[in-house]
Amino acid sequence: MDPLRWLANDYFDLNGLHVDVLEKPPTALEFSRLVHISRPVLIKGFKIAANSNLWTNEYLIERMGSRPISIAVTPNGRADAITTGPNNKLYFTEPCVEQMTMPDFLAKLSGNASHPQEGQSYDCETYYLQSQNGNLYSSRFFDGHDDGSSSPEFEPLRRDVPSEIPWCSQPLDRTPDAVNLWIGDGSSVSSIHSDPYENLYTVVRGEKSFTLLPPTEGWCLNERVYPYASYVRDPASSKLRLQLSAEETRVRWSSITDPNIPGALCDSAHPIHIVVKPGETLYLPAGWWHYVQQTGITVALNWWYDMEMRGPSWALLGFLRNMKDVPDGNEEEEVTTNETAQ
Amino acid sequence: MDPLRWLANDYFDLNGLHVDVLEKPPTALEFSRLVHISRPVLIKGFKIAANSNLWTNEYLIERMGSRPISIAVTPNGRADAITTGPNNKLYFTEPCVEQMTMPDFLAKLSGNASHPQEGQSYDCETYYLQSQNGNLYSSRFFDGHDDGSSSPEFEPLRRDVPSEIPWCSQPLDRTPDAVNLWIGDGSSVSSIHSDPYENLYTVVRGEKSFTLLPPTEGWCLNERVYPYASYVRDPASSKLRLQLSAEETRVRWSSITDPNIPGALCDSAHPIHIVVKPGETLYLPAGWWHYVQQTGITVALNWWYDMEMRGPSWALLGFLRNMKDVPDGNEEEEVTTNETAQ
Ligand SMILES: O=C(O)CCC(=O)C(=O)O
Ligand SMILES: O=C(O)CCC(=O)C(=O)O
Repeated sequence: MDPLRWLANDYFDLNGLHVDVLEKPPTALEFSRLVHISRPVLIKGFKIAANSNLWTNEYLIERMGSRPISIAVTPNGRADAITTGPNNKLYFTEPCVEQMTMPDFLAKLSGNASHPQEGQSYDCETYYLQSQNGNLYSSRFFDGHDDGSSSPEFEPLRRDVPSEIPWCSQPLDRTPDAVNLWIGDGSSVSSIHSDPYENLYTVVRGEKSFTLLPPTEGWCLNERVYPYASYVRDPASSKLRLQLSAEETRVRWSSITDPNIPGALCDSAHPIHIVVKPGETLYLPAGWWHYVQQTGITVALNWWYDMEMRGPSWALLGFLRNMKDVPDGNEEEEVTTNETAQ
Repeated sequence: MDPLRWLANDYFDLNGLHVDVLEKPPTALEFSRLVHISRPVLIKGFKIAANSNLWTNEYLIERMGSRPISIAVTPNGRADAITTGPNNKLYFTEPCVEQMTMPDFLAKLSGNASHPQEGQSYDCETYYLQSQNGNLYSSRFFDGHDDGSSSPEFEPLRRDVPSEIPWCSQPLDRTPDAVNLWIGDGSSVSSIHSDPYENLYTVVRGEKSFTLLPPTEGWCLNERVYPYASYVRDPASSKLRLQLSAEETRVRWSSITDPNIPGALCDSAHPIHIVVKPGETLYLPAGWWHYVQQTGITVALNWWYDMEMRGPSWALLGFLRNMKDVPDGNEEEEVTTNETAQ
């Protein structure tokens, strides 16, 4: 049997769809065990100032004032995703990033809240605060190079967000690589991908729905390489248009647009669905694949910690990633059987 | 490339031959990290009563008196190893287990101490206390079923040996599966094998030399299946002879007799050599292959903790074990290339 299929089946036989739910945050020692087990865990009762019904639109506006913030704009709510471009060719597409103020941004969101989640027209743009570059705290902060001269966009919200989580930093023996604020609504989704981070993801307002696959099932996601494109705003029409990359940049990405559509995944995939509500925190272990949707205006925070590179974990993720060919996303694949791997 | 070779190379590129040496025992949280990293660690300063120069021959004899103890007897110092039997056929061979007293056993050892390590004749028997069945504490003890009616052979030595190691039990969230006493001399070796246990191995007297391979390099050990045999003492001649198993029991075992002989292992194997001296403790992570030699009369203790079965570790070990064919040890292998895997 194909090694990847063998490992996926055996892992599933041993672990099933199990997700632990903790009624209160783990101790450092308990979290250390959870990292070793590397299964998603839903954690309740992790209280931070931002969680205490504080972060209303009014409060966010009051704190942020007219500071410019970077917002991802797309015609379809799919930033960092595969999009059809000219000649029906597929592209890995990054959003148009525009500067605006918090009041303007939140007004756009409220507007979007009544729109259908899928298939919006090019006139109807989707806005998502998803800069994910340590927009609250970055490694500069932890390295002591955060002298205020280049403070992150959401510096005024820092007082409600701890820079690190003691019960994570201690067992992982490191500070976060990035702490991010995410604000969006039901019209934005994050396409399925994985990160080499131990991720602690807290919802403050709204609701996030995660569709998860273990690292062992990545081969079910039909990864391919795609040329790179990004949305830009046309100065003349002031509409978004796709700009193809002049360089030969190619991005490896899953070709599954929505893993929740019946039949999208192969039989060997066993997705796990977890809804994270306000005050709840998801521990999403490094290398787990995630597709993320939201319901209503959703405000969330996450702490990304570099995963352990020593020992078997990193080598195993590399193995799972590199054992399968990644064909060109724009070339017909020779279909010899009706499953991706045998 | 062969998946097993890919993973072995990548793991070695990332981890090299690194072995941490700790000047004092880790805290529970530190040990939890070490378990996740799953590399061997040499730990100094783990003090137990047995370590404090207490366990002289005189003391062991005084404590044990004339209680019968189970000793492994072989003609060659190789208990649980591949041996040539009738018609030059190879067998996985267990030792003859004989009951004797501590004074008798230690007298045999002292005798052996001047013998060459290898190639002893059938007249010159090797004695090794290696019962490894929880001869100090077994799961019965931890389950509370140890009512004294079936107390282990080395019960009188318990007062010098803690039943568990707090900085291991806490992070692993379990008590040991077995705590064992080992006593032998330079004429005994343990052939290369791996166990599904997190192993804490302390030397009290003498010296143990471990030759280690990571789980990713198991395919270099040329495992095969062998018929089963054991040594028995012939009542007439009172010599040891090999008794073949009537049943079709077959044992999977490495066909490498001594991994330290140059050329015994394939090029992709990167053995690690660690000498453990009195007062030192080796953390030998689950799944690591080990070949063990000793110098002089060597007294050692070990704590075996069941490894974590949840998450990727167990599945990865299964994968590494099951991806390679295990041929019959007594059939010529078709040699198509000069390396075991390509
Ligand atoms: O919230 C989202 O839309 C995506 C979150 C995500 O991908 C992450 O935290 O890694
Ligand atoms: O000490 C020895 O001879 C062998 C030890 C061993 O194999 C173990 O502790 O697993």
